[in-house]
Amino acid sequence: MSLSIRGYAAHSPTAPLAPYQFERRDPRPDDVVIDILYCGVCHSDLHQARNEWGGTKYPLVPGHEIIGRVASVGTDVTAFKPGDMVGVGCMVDSCRHCEACAQGLEQYCKEFPTFTYNSVDRHDQRPNYGGYSERILVSDKFVLRIPDGLDPKSAAPLLCAGITTWSPLRHWKIGKGQKVAVIGLGGLGHMGLKFAKAMGADVTLFTRTPGKEQEARRLGADHVVLSTDSKQMEAVAGHFDFILDTVPHPHDLGPYLATLKLNGVHVLVGLVEPIEPPVHSGALIFGRRSISGSLIGGIEETQEMLDFCAKHGISADVEMINMQDINDAYARMLKSDVRYRFVIDLASLKNET
Amino acid sequence: MSLSIRGYAAHSPTAPLAPYQFERRDPRPDDVVIDILYCGVCHSDLHQARNEWGGTKYPLVPGHEIIGRVASVGTDVTAFKPGDMVGVGCMVDSCRHCEACAQGLEQYCKEFPTFTYNSVDRHDQRPNYGGYSERILVSDKFVLRIPDGLDPKSAAPLLCAGITTWSPLRHWKIGKGQKVAVIGLGGLGHMGLKFAKAMGADVTLFTRTPGKEQEARRLGADHVVLSTDSKQMEAVAGHFDFILDTVPHPHDLGPYLATLKLNGVHVLVGLVEPIEPPVHSGALIFGRRSISGSLIGGIEETQEMLDFCAKHGISADVEMINMQDINDAYARMLKSDVRYRFVIDLASLKNET
Ligand SMILES: [Zn+2]
Ligand SMILES: [Zn+2]
Ligand SMILES: [Zn+2]
Ligand SMILES: [Zn+2]
Repeated sequence: MSLSIRGYAAHSPTAPLAPYQFERRDPRPDDVVIDILYCGVCHSDLHQARNEWGGTKYPLVPGHEIIGRVASVGTDVTAFKPGDMVGVGCMVDSCRHCEACAQGLEQYCKEFPTFTYNSVDRHDQRPNYGGYSERILVSDKFVLRIPDGLDPKSAAPLLCAGITTWSPLRHWKIGKGQKVAVIGLGGLGHMGLKFAKAMGADVTLFTRTPGKEQEARRLGADHVVLSTDSKQMEAVAGHFDFILDTVPHPHDLGPYLATLKLNGVHVLVGLVEPIEPPVHSGALIFGRRSISGSLIGGIEETQEMLDFCAKHGISADVEMINMQDINDAYARMLKSDVRYRFVIDLASLKNET
Repeated sequence: MSLSIRGYAAHSPTAPLAPYQFERRDPRPDDVVIDILYCGVCHSDLHQARNEWGGTKYPLVPGHEIIGRVASVGTDVTAFKPGDMVGVGCMVDSCRHCEACAQGLEQYCKEFPTFTYNSVDRHDQRPNYGGYSERILVSDKFVLRIPDGLDPKSAAPLLCAGITTWSPLRHWKIGKGQKVAVIGLGGLGHMGLKFAKAMGADVTLFTRTPGKEQEARRLGADHVVLSTDSKQMEAVAGHFDFILDTVPHPHDLGPYLATLKLNGVHVLVGLVEPIEPPVHSGALIFGRRSISGSLIGGIEETQEMLDFCAKHGISADVEMINMQDINDAYARMLKSDVRYRFVIDLASLKNET
């Protein structure tokens, strides 16, 4: 029996998201069948709904910050049982044997990971639909345990915004004694502040908007630098070990690179576009600085992050919405009018007739 | 007594270099007075003679790949004595106390190193003149020992072209089991091939010019990839751990970045201009790749490189010229018509009347 599922889909780059009924596959032996409770709203949902990165296949059911309860499990599944609180992030499969997969870095799978939506299942070649829906089936290796200590609603954004900032901070070994700057205070940025602080770093927020000091400090920033104020920027020249850049649109990296120390690294996690205006190579050569990028995170490190969050009382700051509010939420997201992540309560979908 | 010195200088961005007589300072207690035997001809000599980077002060006496014999030493100098074969590279001083200097990375000195020419002495504020001249005075801490096993003529280019490629290969810990690509086969590139090979890496030359296979192999390349051939480029997609980019003019990094593995690093050592066309951030994010830059090298690592070269029989491939040939040499350098570095025999200067 295929499962008939209610959800919300984009049907074209310009149409608002609307109710959509679709089928999911019959459960396979390694599948975990999950009743979705909550789903975070990510910028990439909007980008892909509107085909802003190209390659969107319609109808598109977005959503890759999924929290739910296990409804049933396939015969091969031992790690999960009905009733468990679980999560699903940006990936639902990968080749499982390449160098990257062998290291638990499925996001860099040489054969490309299977994404949670706008992707195609590796076995039956059918399109994948995401978490703006009432139920999902995911292979057990790509299902995360949500520890008891975590509030499920505010845990949802950890599965993309969380891991996307956690992974580079861990990879570049951020900890005590290091000076870390976060650029941008949105869904990713607010998690970056929380994690960098919890890891023991001295944390600075770069922002273009005055008046964010109090809010930034509440989230973990020790300092706030107004990047539009050249005096404030000069005061932090050669200052940082690491910059986590969450800005999703093109911006000049030059002024930020100048604030990096010798061997400092500027990591892009929000931008998927040409780096413009072009960076002057002198900003890299004089100081052996690097520009790098980082993509979400692997399954193993996502679980580590969730466990860390439960232990340290960390979660995202969320604003709950109903499924029916998604188009308004997109509009507000574009104005950065959200603190700091919308999360859809999928119970609202059940009330639809 | 000031020392009156014969040399060659640029007097304007457009005039050819011409004979020039000038004075050097009276020796200080830490000075090593060096009779210059040979001086390599670096691309940056030409850039600065023609004020292509801005900031050139005329008259300019270029030259920072200097080999000579110690004529005399100041009263505080213990490491050198008259008759010693020594070298001087791109730097003659630095602040000596900042974080970078304390690590032996004077090239990244927070107060900026004093360069060998087109710079100003830290003590008397007088302009520095380089190695296109018969004699130079340098503080002992910035003088290199030239080991007995090294031919002094072909050792000259080690002091800039050599250390500029050695330092990044060492910093990024290149060795056995790693795949390294070098872009460009000039003064820097030919040293990059030799060093990467001697360090145990599997070495590839990227070139835009067919027919360089035999020559590249002689210099240490295991493979040659024609970067203008898209099939050859596809064959090395995701292949390299490290790319040493010696190209001195703007070029598209995109096709090279695609040849890097997960965590691969593309290091710029030849370019001092905006990175154009702009790099797409996806090339960094999907594979956690980095673009970095590296500037010459510190004094301690320059000595290590010279000792390594003596031990492994490595030196630059040079073409000797007379001082009077410098303008022709610049013209040929612009056409890449040199294998692989011009070195001036300063004895030619003594014959001038
Ligand atoms: Zn996302
Ligand atoms: Zn894989
Ligand atoms: Zn040079
Ligand atoms: Zn210093």
